[in-house]
Amino acid sequence: MRMSKLYLPTLKEDPAEADVISHQLMLRAGMMRKHASGIYSYLPLGYKVIKKIEKIARKHMDNSEAQEVLLPIMQDSQIWKDSKRWDKFGPLMIKFNDRKNREFCLGPTHEEVVTDLVRDEVRSYKDLPLNLYQIQTKVRDEIRPRFGVMRGREFIMKDAYSLDIDSAGLDKSYQAMYDAYEKIFAECGLEAVSVEADTGAMGGKDSHEFMVLADSGEDEIAFCNDCNYAANVERATSQKVGIDFEIESDFEKIQTPQIKTISELEDYLEVPAAKMIKAVAMVADGEAVLALVSGEDELNEIKLTNYLQANELRAAEAEEFEELFNSVPGFIGPINLTEVRIIADQRLKNMSGAIVGANEEDYHFKNVKVKRDFEVEAFADLRSVKSGERCPKCEKGKLDIKAGIEVGHIFKLGTKYSENMDANYLDENGKAQPIVMGSYGIGITRLVAAAIEQNNDQYGIKWPKAIAPYQIIILPLGNDDEVQTKSEAIYQDLKAKGWEVLIDDRKERAGVKFNDSELIGIPLRLTIGSRSLKNGVVEAMTRENNMKTEIELEQLETKIEALFAGIA
Amino acid sequence: MRMSKLYLPTLKEDPAEADVISHQLMLRAGMMRKHASGIYSYLPLGYKVIKKIEKIARKHMDNSEAQEVLLPIMQDSQIWKDSKRWDKFGPLMIKFNDRKNREFCLGPTHEEVVTDLVRDEVRSYKDLPLNLYQIQTKVRDEIRPRFGVMRGREFIMKDAYSLDIDSAGLDKSYQAMYDAYEKIFAECGLEAVSVEADTGAMGGKDSHEFMVLADSGEDEIAFCNDCNYAANVERATSQKVGIDFEIESDFEKIQTPQIKTISELEDYLEVPAAKMIKAVAMVADGEAVLALVSGEDELNEIKLTNYLQANELRAAEAEEFEELFNSVPGFIGPINLTEVRIIADQRLKNMSGAIVGANEEDYHFKNVKVKRDFEVEAFADLRSVKSGERCPKCEKGKLDIKAGIEVGHIFKLGTKYSENMDANYLDENGKAQPIVMGSYGIGITRLVAAAIEQNNDQYGIKWPKAIAPYQIIILPLGNDDEVQTKSEAIYQDLKAKGWEVLIDDRKERAGVKFNDSELIGIPLRLTIGSRSLKNGVVEAMTRENNMKTEIELEQLETKIEALFAGIA
Repeated sequence: MRMSKLYLPTLKEDPAEADVISHQLMLRAGMMRKHASGIYSYLPLGYKVIKKIEKIARKHMDNSEAQEVLLPIMQDSQIWKDSKRWDKFGPLMIKFNDRKNREFCLGPTHEEVVTDLVRDEVRSYKDLPLNLYQIQTKVRDEIRPRFGVMRGREFIMKDAYSLDIDSAGLDKSYQAMYDAYEKIFAECGLEAVSVEADTGAMGGKDSHEFMVLADSGEDEIAFCNDCNYAANVERATSQKVGIDFEIESDFEKIQTPQIKTISELEDYLEVPAAKMIKAVAMVADGEAVLALVSGEDELNEIKLTNYLQANELRAAEAEEFEELFNSVPGFIGPINLTEVRIIADQRLKNMSGAIVGANEEDYHFKNVKVKRDFEVEAFADLRSVKSGERCPKCEKGKLDIKAGIEVGHIFKLGTKYSENMDANYLDENGKAQPIVMGSYGIGITRLVAAAIEQNNDQYGIKWPKAIAPYQIIILPLGNDDEVQTKSEAIYQDLKAKGWEVLIDDRKERAGVKFNDSELIGIPLRLTIGSRSLKNGVVEAMTRENNMKTEIELEQLETKIEALFAGIA
Repeated sequence: MRMSKLYLPTLKEDPAEADVISHQLMLRAGMMRKHASGIYSYLPLGYKVIKKIEKIARKHMDNSEAQEVLLPIMQDSQIWKDSKRWDKFGPLMIKFNDRKNREFCLGPTHEEVVTDLVRDEVRSYKDLPLNLYQIQTKVRDEIRPRFGVMRGREFIMKDAYSLDIDSAGLDKSYQAMYDAYEKIFAECGLEAVSVEADTGAMGGKDSHEFMVLADSGEDEIAFCNDCNYAANVERATSQKVGIDFEIESDFEKIQTPQIKTISELEDYLEVPAAKMIKAVAMVADGEAVLALVSGEDELNEIKLTNYLQANELRAAEAEEFEELFNSVPGFIGPINLTEVRIIADQRLKNMSGAIVGANEEDYHFKNVKVKRDFEVEAFADLRSVKSGERCPKCEKGKLDIKAGIEVGHIFKLGTKYSENMDANYLDENGKAQPIVMGSYGIGITRLVAAAIEQNNDQYGIKWPKAIAPYQIIILPLGNDDEVQTKSEAIYQDLKAKGWEVLIDDRKERAGVKFNDSELIGIPLRLTIGSRSLKNGVVEAMTRENNMKTEIELEQLETKIEALFAGIA
């Protein structure tokens, strides 16, 4: 391709709208443009990368006997009501009525469509197993679209759905997808790790996320430094022990004027946070819930949501402290709190001598004993693990927490959808059984961003060669006739040999050409100038490490092959 | 691929929902399933055909220097308001608000997005020409979705947008797309003809449609039997002469009790329809319009819409005859009709001695003279051409009217969008000029249906080889070990040679296998049975003509190549 013809509007400055490096570079390198918040147009260079990733995903899906289909974006509400997720998705799902006033949504995911599709077609155990996948646009109306394509509202996903007769079949299908995903990320040149994950709105049993580690990632992952334990902090646990103190006196009220936070209490009372109970006022689907964790811990809202099986969980607003809890912000606590569900972290089970809010402005209680002084609906794992805590698996190593970008997510759904939607097969005895399902997703557009987060420097993108928009870029420098002729000949020659080549034939200064070539990150650059041509050489640079080598013209093809083979 | 694993739910019976052959066969051959009215899920076999067509389209677009992009499905209302089409599309466009209450629509087409994209990026004449294309899902909320994917609500389109500095550039871009389209349809194995077309909601100057002739087509096309004239009847004209009679007496009222239609009048008065004026009560954007054509002609609503530049044109409801026209159904006419726009077909310009409705129950006028007895806002071409009329181009040949399926449509948009949306470039003198645009579309999913309409018989589909989901199908018959072994060997062998092969390894009767292979229309079938194997032969059948030949096993590969080369 000639750069003079390529629609490649590069930018010199970092665009104000972009706050992470991949977002900046995707805009600067002319890969995409914003259409509306979280919605992008992919320009030729960006779409080439997407197509390369799609091709790799398709190959490994086909190799694992998944079959490609294309399912509707516009989905009938009835199937979502059947599966009981019509309300669950909330405002994340875009809903509208068609001209005949029938309710539809834009598909945020396709479990319902697949279940609906097969419930009329798959009749016998002989029709299973089956794995259907698609590469398609999804729409989710995110409350805070950000980081470019990392959290967009319209994005491309590769999603697959496995259908089996039993959970042994599901385990096999799940493993096949797990293996395929590892191959896909590896072939794309990404370092991705798999971690245990929360199942969230999908429901089901097991779940793994595939994470690309990057500081800009929105997810936090706990890794053991000794064994292979890795889990999203939404789900991670540790060997943190329970809290147990020996004070058995009755609880008593103490004055704490304007002392509202744990750290203020630590200073004022000169007592460590471990001796306090943090009470967090939450509202779950409209209902008041008080969550208790140790003063040294943080409430994990995902864990609480899962425990409550809530659709929507949020912190209480200031005015709700009185309305719903009959308490005051800064002084809320579990004692004398009626008609409020109280859920406590399991570490608190045997705690005594604790300090808690007194539900009265400027007062706390001390010497509080759990279960003696207040009732708890349940003890559950509600806290977030912290760096340095003991691994729950090997019980030896310590946990380390790193930021990551979720690029894939696989779920064992089980029979949740098939039971709700009546998708059955007849077993060998002619008895109807629910189909056992799995669901598997890769965020194709997000993967582009993740690849850039892992592969960039101050000059721009450094594409892994498997997903680079072009493999080689030729920079003819100056107006010298011989340079033009030789560059054109090399361009034609390499193209004919099957290389994907870009030639910067624009009438631009050398500096502009160098900068753009580094910005758009083509793995191999050939610089052709009149001086080096006189010496019978061209300069090659591998963008991966910005290493330059001179190549003799006669050896061009073999050297290029060698250089290309040597890079990631 | 093994048919035992392929998700291919074929149907024996014609589904009740399908009324044209392509729709029946796409359902019966397990290519797709209906999700909701006009919305389909494409199953593995159907999606394979779609991908083949997309690949062919992509090749010819790339060859004509168009560049592939991917634009949003969810589009901000503002750009549609800028282009003044937000209201024009009416209920065909699905509109909704996002969670922040911003108005969006689902893209029915992408002129606005492209114009918006380039208006901030294309700065100089040096950045042009440019042609951006995409292959993507479009949504149009059709009032009567029908004929399967032929008129669906969610469908795949290949759309392209050319951007030029002037109309000479546009002419060149338009021709390049015209040529590419001819190549695409030819390579898909379709017989498509190009016809002059109405520009409709796109606006602009010239327009051509590419039509596949088929009885089930929703479009009517007028062809000259002598020259190359071909036009959609929405736009076609003919050499039909004006109507001129010599009666000069004053008009007078005649009683016509319950005689309401032209044919009833013909019988009752014993006067030919050519002597009558048909008055059609229409409502254009809420305003009353009376359209007049000869009693022997039909009003062409598209021509009237274009003349009026109306957004919405419809026939008046019965109760509106009194409200808006002060008349009665069956007896409406142009005389004494005040405050109603009257537009007459140009053939009526010199008509006299005509019979028209008297705007009074059971009465008509006779001896009416146009312009003497009533005023007309304008004379325009309002009638539909009819078979047998003289060609408007060569003036010798006669017009023939055939049904066709529109598979492609190209438009010279000119500066309509760039002027409304302020998309300018700076010319060589630094002066801002509007970009000159063209728009080009192929209905990818509709093309699948059109291919089936042109290629089928009573047994099923006969795929043109370029878009067949598989090239070869192998039918092993019976349970004979040698048949199984040999079939498997041939399957592996042909696959290794690069053929796309399906093997029917299901435990089904020979009849079922034969029927399914014909239904799904794979171009070349190899039948392997124990009797023929003993003779060292297999039976090959080319689905195109259902011709069978015996092939000696030693010659299998060369014979297959020859057979395949010989079919369309």
